[in-house]
Amino acid sequence: MLADIGVIGLAVMGQNLILNLNDHGYKVLAHNRTEQKITDFLEGSARGTHIRGAITLETLTAGLESPRKILLMVRAGEVVDQYINRLIPLLDEGDIIIDGGNSNYADTSRRVAQLSQHKLHFLGIGVSGGEEGARHGPSIMPGGDQCAWPYLKPILQSIAAKTPEGEACCDWVGSGGAGHFVKMVHNGIEYGDMQLIAEAYHFMQAGLGMSYPEMSACFAEWNNTELDSYLVEITADILAFKDKQGEHLVEHILDAAGQKGTGKWTGINALELGVPLTLITESVFARCLSALQPERVSASEHFKGADAIVLDSAEAKVKCLDDLRQALLASKIISYAQGFMLMREASNEHNWDLNYGNVALMWREGCIIRSAFLGNIRDAFAKSPDLLFLGLDDYFKNLLIQCLPAWRRIVSQAMQHGLPMPCMSSALNFLNAYASERLPANLIQAQRDYFGAHTYERLDHARGEFFHTDWAQTGGNVSSSSYEV
Amino acid sequence: MLADIGVIGLAVMGQNLILNLNDHGYKVLAHNRTEQKITDFLEGSARGTHIRGAITLETLTAGLESPRKILLMVRAGEVVDQYINRLIPLLDEGDIIIDGGNSNYADTSRRVAQLSQHKLHFLGIGVSGGEEGARHGPSIMPGGDQCAWPYLKPILQSIAAKTPEGEACCDWVGSGGAGHFVKMVHNGIEYGDMQLIAEAYHFMQAGLGMSYPEMSACFAEWNNTELDSYLVEITADILAFKDKQGEHLVEHILDAAGQKGTGKWTGINALELGVPLTLITESVFARCLSALQPERVSASEHFKGADAIVLDSAEAKVKCLDDLRQALLASKIISYAQGFMLMREASNEHNWDLNYGNVALMWREGCIIRSAFLGNIRDAFAKSPDLLFLGLDDYFKNLLIQCLPAWRRIVSQAMQHGLPMPCMSSALNFLNAYASERLPANLIQAQRDYFGAHTYERLDHARGEFFHTDWAQTGGNVSSSSYEV
Repeated sequence: MLADIGVIGLAVMGQNLILNLNDHGYKVLAHNRTEQKITDFLEGSARGTHIRGAITLETLTAGLESPRKILLMVRAGEVVDQYINRLIPLLDEGDIIIDGGNSNYADTSRRVAQLSQHKLHFLGIGVSGGEEGARHGPSIMPGGDQCAWPYLKPILQSIAAKTPEGEACCDWVGSGGAGHFVKMVHNGIEYGDMQLIAEAYHFMQAGLGMSYPEMSACFAEWNNTELDSYLVEITADILAFKDKQGEHLVEHILDAAGQKGTGKWTGINALELGVPLTLITESVFARCLSALQPERVSASEHFKGADAIVLDSAEAKVKCLDDLRQALLASKIISYAQGFMLMREASNEHNWDLNYGNVALMWREGCIIRSAFLGNIRDAFAKSPDLLFLGLDDYFKNLLIQCLPAWRRIVSQAMQHGLPMPCMSSALNFLNAYASERLPANLIQAQRDYFGAHTYERLDHARGEFFHTDWAQTGGNVSSSSYEV
Repeated sequence: MLADIGVIGLAVMGQNLILNLNDHGYKVLAHNRTEQKITDFLEGSARGTHIRGAITLETLTAGLESPRKILLMVRAGEVVDQYINRLIPLLDEGDIIIDGGNSNYADTSRRVAQLSQHKLHFLGIGVSGGEEGARHGPSIMPGGDQCAWPYLKPILQSIAAKTPEGEACCDWVGSGGAGHFVKMVHNGIEYGDMQLIAEAYHFMQAGLGMSYPEMSACFAEWNNTELDSYLVEITADILAFKDKQGEHLVEHILDAAGQKGTGKWTGINALELGVPLTLITESVFARCLSALQPERVSASEHFKGADAIVLDSAEAKVKCLDDLRQALLASKIISYAQGFMLMREASNEHNWDLNYGNVALMWREGCIIRSAFLGNIRDAFAKSPDLLFLGLDDYFKNLLIQCLPAWRRIVSQAMQHGLPMPCMSSALNFLNAYASERLPANLIQAQRDYFGAHTYERLDHARGEFFHTDWAQTGGNVSSSSYEV
């Protein structure tokens, strides 16, 4: 009997997706570059299931229902192209290759175009949720050649996470590399969320001198508010975790954050598209800076470090922690608002016609940034699909207005006491600037016109009308055509 | 008689460089795609000089001393490649092509390699200073094929700007695209400087309610301190400038800043190299955000704007403005420190062996960021060529320590009053973090290990030893090989 789907790549994500597919009644043929890994899998966690192995790509393709559906769960980059090129001669018109790795969206766009020339369909799907998600219900963000979607929709939606209302966290994202782009933004937002939580923890520990049990209890409490989310939940667990010696393990972990690239891709895309994605970019830089740990340790001997924040009563502390919660919430709203601005610009640029409500729905469960908050974002875009700034939706606007005084107090205190808080500050600066009728960019335009004759527009004239002034009164009056800044 | 150098491209920068070369006794052959432009130039500003025209590339190459030196002053991008490809068959072994446009350094690296295959030499030189600089002495940053440097050194050093001590603001930068990379970082720093000045202006105007004459006087005064620089000087001019109606012109300029790409390239390179270049990146995003002017105007109706800062005496105002000066100075130190961190990382990556003191020397005069400050940077790197962080040089360290209280007060006030100050904040956050013995990145590593089994290192174990914990106590104990974040 022919199988429903083939999966190539038996690392932990591939294995877990196969087991998940098997649970939902799909017959899977599994292939891996090394035969031993197939045997180990079939005799290990796949024992007693309907999962079968294919030792060669020929037996894999010979064993699949038409149109063939082959999911690649291999390392992003060249390996994907190598498998595609080996598969092409073994496939028939209308067959489908799906890439479930963390590929760069530009590679995915290129592959969709390449395979369509062979009359084959290519999908690039973002899969989030780590090993647990893959096994029991990930968030799945599919994009690429839409002709293939009807064949994959029932399969992917059945294995995906479900919202509390029972909807699958998987729906069509858009053409080309849209699925992988949205996954990239997801990861960028994950960087931002993690850094915001880290800043709150640092404020509690270095600023307020709180103990680990106190901090853990505080995050656990916040998890019952609008901040309800997987990352806040595991933060409470982590802060409470003691090792065998009874010590708080997190205290012994080296404070140098690693990264694997999707955060920096998000920042690079924002710069390329001209979208002010300040918070995620600061969170990527915060990881880079943390990684300079030996440099930091030696620099710390030369400069005054952070001062403790002294609060004069238990009530003042409760108040301050509630301020901190509001600062975290408001900053998080800005981060998501910026992420959706980036997706809108990319969608316009690439004609993806993204459905932002669906994106929020896909992130609602299954993935690392899953949260109640994403349900509200989904509602906001369902109500106003053309919303330019999430913070203008009534629900989020009211939260921002409500949190603003506390948010200002927290960032202001952190700055006064020397506590680093790059993401909460950048978020506050963003809202301050976004809600400014006037910014000082008029001076920047005047400077550019002064030294480079770049010309400027005027508030009291129509857009598109350009002026140049001989500011230094030297008589030069030619606008620049070659000097660039 | 054969000419010393040929120049292709008669836009304003090309014309001015030719006139500058002529002033220094060099015989120049000038070529342009359209013949009319050559005629206009020869009959216009080049009349009465030794400058001659070459209507075709054949007459240009036939009229040059050996080894031929041909300077391209054309639009960066494809046009440069087109000229290179047309010139190759007309040149002899050892001839030299020089690109003086704002090319991307990666293109320059590629072209150096391409031309060396033809036994030709290629130089990519950054030229800064706008039209005025080109005419009377620009900052010149040459890189590429070092074999060509002895032929160009006397020419370029003679036309370059000179420091107060008489040194030329032009010296060898490094191989490949090093010259254009350094020029790119120069432009990024220029974005940062302009945004910092704009933030100070905004604080004065929107925060302190100062008049234009007061603000202009304040910048003029600052120009007699460590902030002495071209950009502060022209800011004083701009703020004082009145139009024919007697109104302050800058007030009528549309507050939407333009950009031409080198700032965003700097941010992209920092992300790619993992260097926390927060200030310049925020300054690029600040321009992007300013450009959303219609969105800002409508958002301003929904949120509380900035509050005025009320000061109770003339002394308090003097004190506050001196705080602001110190905040600007300290932020500027951080911006340059980050820029030099980026150049060091790029130099390591590409084996450029950059001389940081020389870089500062080249920027000392002639270019847009010229300042007294760059003389101090030059001294710092002359003393310690391996300085990892400019802020650890004694002169800059003492300034930072001295300015820190005022800087904290200003940023803290801005945050409390809702004034956007993205670059001064990001700079303060950077120093706070860089000088932190401990940052909260241990929590981020714990989170990554919790949801993705990414492993972590421990403070009490050697680097390179990785640990994984089953935080949720579910029994999983496999570290991740495929999930990436």
